[in-house]
Amino acid sequence: MDFKSAYDRWAEMVNRAIDNYVAEKDTPEGSIYKAMRYSLTAGGKRLRPVLSLAVCDMLGGNAPEIMPFACAIEMIHTYSLIHDDLPAMDNDDYRRGKPTNHKVFGEAMAVLAGDALLNRAFEIMVDNCLGLCVKDIHYQKAARFKNSGKCCVNSKEMSPITLRLMAMDAIAEASGASGMIGGQVVDLESEGRLISPELLQYMHRCKTGALIKAAVMSSAILCGASEDEKSRLETYAEKIGLAFQIKDDILNVEGNPEEMGKATGSDAANKKSTFVSVFGLERSKSMLDDITAQAILSIDEFGKKAEFLKEIAIYIHNRNK
Amino acid sequence: MDFKSAYDRWAEMVNRAIDNYVAEKDTPEGSIYKAMRYSLTAGGKRLRPVLSLAVCDMLGGNAPEIMPFACAIEMIHTYSLIHDDLPAMDNDDYRRGKPTNHKVFGEAMAVLAGDALLNRAFEIMVDNCLGLCVKDIHYQKAARFKNSGKCCVNSKEMSPITLRLMAMDAIAEASGASGMIGGQVVDLESEGRLISPELLQYMHRCKTGALIKAAVMSSAILCGASEDEKSRLETYAEKIGLAFQIKDDILNVEGNPEEMGKATGSDAANKKSTFVSVFGLERSKSMLDDITAQAILSIDEFGKKAEFLKEIAIYIHNRNK
Repeated sequence: MDFKSAYDRWAEMVNRAIDNYVAEKDTPEGSIYKAMRYSLTAGGKRLRPVLSLAVCDMLGGNAPEIMPFACAIEMIHTYSLIHDDLPAMDNDDYRRGKPTNHKVFGEAMAVLAGDALLNRAFEIMVDNCLGLCVKDIHYQKAARFKNSGKCCVNSKEMSPITLRLMAMDAIAEASGASGMIGGQVVDLESEGRLISPELLQYMHRCKTGALIKAAVMSSAILCGASEDEKSRLETYAEKIGLAFQIKDDILNVEGNPEEMGKATGSDAANKKSTFVSVFGLERSKSMLDDITAQAILSIDEFGKKAEFLKEIAIYIHNRNK
Repeated sequence: MDFKSAYDRWAEMVNRAIDNYVAEKDTPEGSIYKAMRYSLTAGGKRLRPVLSLAVCDMLGGNAPEIMPFACAIEMIHTYSLIHDDLPAMDNDDYRRGKPTNHKVFGEAMAVLAGDALLNRAFEIMVDNCLGLCVKDIHYQKAARFKNSGKCCVNSKEMSPITLRLMAMDAIAEASGASGMIGGQVVDLESEGRLISPELLQYMHRCKTGALIKAAVMSSAILCGASEDEKSRLETYAEKIGLAFQIKDDILNVEGNPEEMGKATGSDAANKKSTFVSVFGLERSKSMLDDITAQAILSIDEFGKKAEFLKEIAIYIHNRNK
């Protein structure tokens, strides 16, 4: 299967799962589900959950066990975009070629839809952890957990519950004040002034990098990856996270607004500190080349199985939207 | 010890714990912690975490084990107030006698501070669950969990991890789209029109009731309460949650703005549906009397130990702010 077909197949699996996780409801608060679903189904690339599934595939893990966490990450990503687009924040009217959430549902509902998506992400992960307990207690179905299912015992073998809690912990930290939200704060406070290259990298490591890394690492944790494997994947995730942001900044200057489904040039207009404004366009492009090469190299030891993840690094490098 | 001293002692314990959970940091995103702490320490009554601790005390539980969940609930409550006060929502300038979060830190930061508090609530709860595993695996300290610490085994005895996950699940559901946020959505969509008594009660069961109930029930779950005990406490929680909201609506008409630290009359000005607008002031007051009596009666079987919780019901009934 070629890269695009494989990518699309996984993205489609994610779409179906998300559709179930945030279903429409005919209750008095039903409109919140519409608002949540609007942004969830607005044609995102599903890069983060696809990364999770690709890591799982490479490590020989079980995709359905990864899915709740992969979808939770996509929901966290989506809520951050809804809030980021608000008039009080970036004040964007379009996202992925469609009117932004607050343009359709109003500002108050957009705030609540974002809140609800973040909350739902954790509901899904907690339910997943709990399901593992309840299933085993009441139904005795999960026979394979019976032997390894002792939690908190003296063993180097982590139980499934421990792994899931560790994955949830990685995601929670990545999306919080010391991760994604922290990056947004630095971004906010950097507007209109030129920041140091170090602070720029710090900002993006938090703002975009943390959640991309969480997508890779939560999957690695859930699949029981070794310390060595986790270390390689961590480097890979950090590199593609940085590459993603450099490319974003380049596209904001050079991209085609029609193809991207949103306006370009907004960074310059908002006097944002970007890789382009700090390092210049040419230097940013050569940084992107270097970092992409480093990402690919970092997972070379996984051999042929790492092919898809390498292709993702190239996809991030070459993307037009 | 009299009621007020006992209440204040627990509230003070909560204050100290919160101070640790959301500490100031000297990092580039440091201002987010200032914004989070501003609203967290703005003089809230700490009703929800005090309820958790009181239930724990009544059931003979261990307060430090309840504390992370009690604080998480207070953080969720605080984030909902920050977002609720935003210009796009209720547009309130004062809360508890102090300028609202967005008035001090700006709208963008207030959105992010709210997001970060919700996220932090889950970080704390997940860390707490995980700590139980990691502690036992690495340090062998938690000897008392060694016997009961099997997760997912065939037993009616729930393990500590399962109880914590169940508590987190109850909190997550209460704060989400089918709980608190759902209630806010109904509230938003009810502005300017008279709603049915049924919808009014549904709205408040979600908006205020769900999180108050979660404070009581998560503590009961963590303390390993019996089904019978949980059932009584559930009734109690539902009654005081409703009483709290009826009193809120009455105070918005009759309260003293100086004492309350915020403007009154805003419900009528915003054409909100309230108990007073739907049932009238006198009927609302007699409903408040009845429901308070029912709350007290519902925990009568706990005997003398339930005294503090009964006093809380009276406190909610009599409060002036």
